[in-house]
Amino acid sequence: MLKFFINSKDNKARAGYFETEHGIVETPVFMPVGTQGTVKAVNQKHLEEIKAQIVLSNTYHLYLRPGTEVLEKAGGLHKFMSWQKPILTDSGGFQVFSLSDLRKLKPDGVEFKSHLDGSSHFFSPEKVVGIQRSIGSDIMMVLDECTPYPCEYDYALNSAKLTSNWAEMSKEAFEKSGPLYGHKQFMFGIIQGSIYKDLREFSAKDITNIDFDGYAIGGLAVGEPVDVMYDIVDFTTSLMPEDKPRYLMGVGRPENLLEAIERGVDMFDCVMPTRNGRNAYLFTSNGILSMRNAKYKDDFSTIDENCDCYTCKNFSKAYLRHLFIAKEILALELASIHNLNFYLSLIRTAREKIIEGSFSQWKKEILKNITLNNITTEV
Amino acid sequence: MLKFFINSKDNKARAGYFETEHGIVETPVFMPVGTQGTVKAVNQKHLEEIKAQIVLSNTYHLYLRPGTEVLEKAGGLHKFMSWQKPILTDSGGFQVFSLSDLRKLKPDGVEFKSHLDGSSHFFSPEKVVGIQRSIGSDIMMVLDECTPYPCEYDYALNSAKLTSNWAEMSKEAFEKSGPLYGHKQFMFGIIQGSIYKDLREFSAKDITNIDFDGYAIGGLAVGEPVDVMYDIVDFTTSLMPEDKPRYLMGVGRPENLLEAIERGVDMFDCVMPTRNGRNAYLFTSNGILSMRNAKYKDDFSTIDENCDCYTCKNFSKAYLRHLFIAKEILALELASIHNLNFYLSLIRTAREKIIEGSFSQWKKEILKNITLNNITTEV
Repeated sequence: MLKFFINSKDNKARAGYFETEHGIVETPVFMPVGTQGTVKAVNQKHLEEIKAQIVLSNTYHLYLRPGTEVLEKAGGLHKFMSWQKPILTDSGGFQVFSLSDLRKLKPDGVEFKSHLDGSSHFFSPEKVVGIQRSIGSDIMMVLDECTPYPCEYDYALNSAKLTSNWAEMSKEAFEKSGPLYGHKQFMFGIIQGSIYKDLREFSAKDITNIDFDGYAIGGLAVGEPVDVMYDIVDFTTSLMPEDKPRYLMGVGRPENLLEAIERGVDMFDCVMPTRNGRNAYLFTSNGILSMRNAKYKDDFSTIDENCDCYTCKNFSKAYLRHLFIAKEILALELASIHNLNFYLSLIRTAREKIIEGSFSQWKKEILKNITLNNITTEV
Repeated sequence: MLKFFINSKDNKARAGYFETEHGIVETPVFMPVGTQGTVKAVNQKHLEEIKAQIVLSNTYHLYLRPGTEVLEKAGGLHKFMSWQKPILTDSGGFQVFSLSDLRKLKPDGVEFKSHLDGSSHFFSPEKVVGIQRSIGSDIMMVLDECTPYPCEYDYALNSAKLTSNWAEMSKEAFEKSGPLYGHKQFMFGIIQGSIYKDLREFSAKDITNIDFDGYAIGGLAVGEPVDVMYDIVDFTTSLMPEDKPRYLMGVGRPENLLEAIERGVDMFDCVMPTRNGRNAYLFTSNGILSMRNAKYKDDFSTIDENCDCYTCKNFSKAYLRHLFIAKEILALELASIHNLNFYLSLIRTAREKIIEGSFSQWKKEILKNITLNNITTEV
């Protein structure tokens, strides 16, 4: 079992940590997304510099490329990508449903065609455990069906049932198998149920009945109104065990993270900081800056005077704008480093505030500034 | 005057150094190309780590974007791009002739249309000095006409005459003006004359009659056979003063650099290491590797066991191949860092060998290996 300790609680918000053989992860935690075994545009040295504690990678993508044979020969993903801190892998369920063509759901898994070359593949709960054994992630996720939004009640009900069955099959496959590289692996279950509270209750009961190392809330941040998301998060965390990490998958904007922390969530991942960075949107303590804006042409001030990242310590808004306008690759690196550092330090501060017992008040203050010029770019 | 000292000579090969107010540059030296104020895909911290002594940037590109007004407000290019070591700027002559449309040569300059937006501009020798004052490069180059290959004799003759006139006008403008940012700037003349020895002699005489801080050989590596290039380099260096740096512009492959060093050249720049890196071609002590090759799929060895760069110390061929195949931005960074480090360490070693007096023998040995699998990618 994953060792998870809660240091402090501030109402529902929790400050804790869990232990993997690749290191301790302090929670709440934001996990930079390294879908294909690399956090886009950011090298591993920079990830360490900005104190990333754990990165997320993706089972679906790694299975297709470079494939499990290569990963096994490499001795697992940690060695392959030269990252010695913890790795969590998403099961690939979300990608099968969002990226691949012609998927066919069956009771024992899902048939799909690769988005790369149209080749046919089948993911069963067992197979996805096996792939994650080949990857060697510290935390693996069960295969689930991530329902879209909006989603009919009946579809969401049947889907939640399927996810429950798959969770049991996953747990069984997990227990029957063992790690390949000498370090322990842990497994999290995923609670589904769309925006229907009774289905969330049903799913939470089923999933938490299985003794996973942690539990995730899936199927949110897929287009539902933000208040609905917060309400479902609040409702679902109240159904989740106190003594295991809670992971809200694929969320989100800085304010979403803070609201979810307040509602008892411990773990997050999202492509927003890197994807928006590559699109020249910079998160700062004074709101969101669109770096292509002409007003930055001769603005030689730091991007965020409260930030200590490589980008902010060395470069000006005017230089970063120039790099974006001139389509230079360095723009992508500098923006991604800054945005990730913004997320990581925000969540580190949130943890301190929970320990101090002043989380909610701090949250209220900081949200005024960081949500200025909110952007509508898709997650 | 630029202070240039020669420590050692090994036949025609020279090991020396020159002093700028941004630091000493040991020669022979390779200058990474940072056309638009950034070496493509490589951040400034990495440039320092691989011991880049000086980078080249480009007057034509910087004039169009971000423009001299921004550069002046920034306090020059060093501050703008956060690079405190020396910078050399090419005059823009080559770009006017290779990139822009509808150029019209006139005795007092060249009219051209921007490759970005078609807007009309005029570069005179004086104007180009002025732009380089705004840039604040440690070494500026005079405006010249870079002849293509092949080039008719009469065209090359008239062009060399024009380049001579422009060189005089440049020197005059240089002396009439002063630096904007408190540090000294130096200026190099450029010898043209295509592949015609009598024209090279004519141009060398004209240009070296003007008291520049250094002299460049232009108009080579534009498509002529490599033996012709070596012959013209050998011939031209014999016409250049001993006590000033000699710069062979836009050259080239690793073997071209070594051959030119043997013929008395001190300075080089070329996009090859970065451009080829971005195209997955890696220079190594065992020849050139095409990293997309399927044979590297499960080759977990280091890219070059004799290399100490970030890429080689941390990542395998298989990982780099995966990044290229998966179109990940990190591939571009890792390949560019490695290739630049290969060039920079090769030239550092060349310098040591000159000092030891064993340059030619070492060159013969090393060329056997590094030219394996030579590629035909354009410079």
